[in-house]
Amino acid sequence: EARKVLGEFQPADIAEFVENLPVHEIGPILNLLSPETAGEVINQLDAELAGDVLSDMGEEKTGAIIDEMYSDDVADILGEMTDPEKDKILSLMGQEDAIEVRELLEFKEDTAGGIMTTEYVAILQNITAERAIQVIRETAPDAETVYYVYVINDKNQLVGVISLRELIIANPKTLIEDIMHHKVKSVNVHMDQEEVAAMVAKYDFLAIPVVDDDQSLMGIITVDDVIDVIHEEASEDIYRLAGTAEVDFEDALWKRIWMAVRNRLPWLLVTLLGGFLAGGIIRGLEKEIQTVVALSYFIPLLTGMGGNVGTQSSTLAVRGLATGQIDAGKMLKTVGTAALIGIGVGLICGLIVTVMAFLWQKSLLLGLVVGISLCVNMITASTMGTFVPLVLKRFGVDPAVASAPFISTTIDITGLLIYAGLSSVFIKWLV
Amino acid sequence: EARKVLGEFQPADIAEFVENLPVHEIGPILNLLSPETAGEVINQLDAELAGDVLSDMGEEKTGAIIDEMYSDDVADILGEMTDPEKDKILSLMGQEDAIEVRELLEFKEDTAGGIMTTEYVAILQNITAERAIQVIRETAPDAETVYYVYVINDKNQLVGVISLRELIIANPKTLIEDIMHHKVKSVNVHMDQEEVAAMVAKYDFLAIPVVDDDQSLMGIITVDDVIDVIHEEASEDIYRLAGTAEVDFEDALWKRIWMAVRNRLPWLLVTLLGGFLAGGIIRGLEKEIQTVVALSYFIPLLTGMGGNVGTQSSTLAVRGLATGQIDAGKMLKTVGTAALIGIGVGLICGLIVTVMAFLWQKSLLLGLVVGISLCVNMITASTMGTFVPLVLKRFGVDPAVASAPFISTTIDITGLLIYAGLSSVFIKWLV
Ligand SMILES: [Mg+2]
Ligand SMILES: [Mg+2]
Ligand SMILES: [Mg+2]
Ligand SMILES: [Mg+2]
Ligand SMILES: [Mg+2]
Ligand SMILES: [Mg+2]
Ligand SMILES: [Mg+2]
Ligand SMILES: [Mg+2]
Ligand SMILES: [Mg+2]
Ligand SMILES: [Mg+2]
Ligand SMILES: [Mg+2]
Ligand SMILES: [Mg+2]
Ligand SMILES: [Mg+2]
Repeated sequence: EARKVLGEFQPADIAEFVENLPVHEIGPILNLLSPETAGEVINQLDAELAGDVLSDMGEEKTGAIIDEMYSDDVADILGEMTDPEKDKILSLMGQEDAIEVRELLEFKEDTAGGIMTTEYVAILQNITAERAIQVIRETAPDAETVYYVYVINDKNQLVGVISLRELIIANPKTLIEDIMHHKVKSVNVHMDQEEVAAMVAKYDFLAIPVVDDDQSLMGIITVDDVIDVIHEEASEDIYRLAGTAEVDFEDALWKRIWMAVRNRLPWLLVTLLGGFLAGGIIRGLEKEIQTVVALSYFIPLLTGMGGNVGTQSSTLAVRGLATGQIDAGKMLKTVGTAALIGIGVGLICGLIVTVMAFLWQKSLLLGLVVGISLCVNMITASTMGTFVPLVLKRFGVDPAVASAPFISTTIDITGLLIYAGLSSVFIKWLV
Repeated sequence: EARKVLGEFQPADIAEFVENLPVHEIGPILNLLSPETAGEVINQLDAELAGDVLSDMGEEKTGAIIDEMYSDDVADILGEMTDPEKDKILSLMGQEDAIEVRELLEFKEDTAGGIMTTEYVAILQNITAERAIQVIRETAPDAETVYYVYVINDKNQLVGVISLRELIIANPKTLIEDIMHHKVKSVNVHMDQEEVAAMVAKYDFLAIPVVDDDQSLMGIITVDDVIDVIHEEASEDIYRLAGTAEVDFEDALWKRIWMAVRNRLPWLLVTLLGGFLAGGIIRGLEKEIQTVVALSYFIPLLTGMGGNVGTQSSTLAVRGLATGQIDAGKMLKTVGTAALIGIGVGLICGLIVTVMAFLWQKSLLLGLVVGISLCVNMITASTMGTFVPLVLKRFGVDPAVASAPFISTTIDITGLLIYAGLSSVFIKWLV
């Protein structure tokens, strides 16, 4: 009965349902499914939970399920395990499969090797279209995708590609080498996953082959995994921009809080130090503030506006670099545009503030000091917010570390310096 | 010769090369390509540029190219054109194709209807596997994907799906209805594109069928377009979080600057108003500051730290809601966790600041006033930064409008209120 109910659902739906259950209740539910479906469900779970579930199930069942899974997904799960757990699972696998998975585990998680699967369809170039379809029929149950067929020479080097779509409309007797595409886009096994994802997105591929330095075919990366990479990399940039990092929602509450505190603290301490520096600058303005207390009223306005312009600019620069819309090479043009934008918003806001401060404090000079400080501060903020990510990118540092906390703290300080400078020059006329 | 060189490249590469050329130079280059390849190149260009290029080419050539393109891509380009330009292109198309494209143009850009294509493979359920493959062979040149074959009844309602992979390994004589999947995941034509993308990502589909309210098959959405949606939606959230919006890099410099100023100004004006409110609060502290100027030294520290914690929290909440890791329904749990995290970072930073302020100003009480204000401010910031996006989501507003400018301005004000309150209570012992 339960089996019948489960049969109505997609593996991803079953995964969504079981992931909130305790680990020891998940195994019995998966037992109701075929090993193939169970494998698909496990593949949709968080890798850590998936490992716990597999370790908790009987050896025989675990072996049967693992056998149906793709090598990249098995490697992802094993990558989260301790060595003894890992060895136990590997011992349940066929020798050949175990060797493949072990090899995949050697690659860094966020490289092409770390996300590729070894279950692809490869054929030699001197067979016919008819024969190729026959090969696909035989490989289909095991391959992760059969829609792209890769053509290799006798040294296992990638020499061509043909899609199943092209194969089924081809004359059955044609040789593969006469209809295949000779120029194949491939990625090196050590390429960063973000670059891989950008290539798949650019060329609209369903999969991309992975080769080693000798052009030897190592595996393929499928589009579903590319989508996961795109999500992951976007999240990473978003969190870095805010000066924090993702929390693992599977973790226990206390662990999550502890991790969150640890992730955020570094940037908060930077801000804290920046805050004391800012305090030092205001201290230098002590006499001026004592005579004209109104000078202190505008401190949050100046730092707030500078922080916002800086955050807006650095966010636009970081995302533009990630999507490729901004070219790190065109530094002068990009930073120049940012400066012009800063002048635009700076003049508008500076003028408004001059008028408002004048109306409030009945001192045109005070209005001008605040307005000019704000304008200069906003220009600096826009320029620096754009310049810093571009420089970081040039030096091979992730531009997203030019985060809101870092940028706004830096700009708080430069902004206050400008303000303190102008105030101390004009103080004699301000009293 | 040039034709041969171009033949070595993928359409996406040719697009990347030509997009920096003046419009009138792009047409002649595309003329060297087959209409099919030219169509693929045009599809990779920005829709506005693509429209300009098509309008610039001869009618005959434009007609031939459009004929080879998929209806969704043609609709995207036409969507950017003026009515007369649009009508001219539509007049070059076959009557049936033109009607299809006109229908697609009726749907909102960011809905399933706005990104679907009408070139899919559909079969009736009472034919054999062999016959189905025959149908695919005939439709292949026109369909955007042939890897999923949708099964419809005689009222054009979606009743099943089968993959080409399953078809080629099936017994040629089996009936489709005996091997197809009866439970097909589909999306309604009015569904938001972000939800569509989430479904395709969840189920690892290569395409998803689009139906109307009567379950009638209208089109399909392919995974390459889903990837574009994911990029677009991530960028939108990132820019909104920073209180700005994407600039179109194809625009002329002055238009770009003008757009950037316009995009950013609203949030900057909110911050500006907030800055005056903050100024008013400090003004209420005028007497206290005049006696203990040191009170003003800590203003940037307090607003800076609050702004950062608030930005971190709202960013985590907005992204968590977008990826589905945070469930807007579990408000109490999510906000409670944020409060606990606020207490964690607040206690640590509050303690550090108390000690540092004491060492600097040699007044333990001043240290305590600053430290306690900071701690309370950080707890408020973490809680509010999480609460606001969740509430917005509940009321159907995009949570990303809980942007850095909005959150940090609000928190500047609450933080200063706390500080002003504590300072005025303890002022008699501070002097
Ligand atoms: Mg992996
Ligand atoms: Mg694409
Ligand atoms: Mg995979
Ligand atoms: Mg996968
Ligand atoms: Mg990155
Ligand atoms: Mg990365
Ligand atoms: Mg469209
Ligand atoms: Mg997926
Ligand atoms: Mg499409
Ligand atoms: Mg497309
Ligand atoms: Mg959105
Ligand atoms: Mg949207
Ligand atoms: Mg700030």
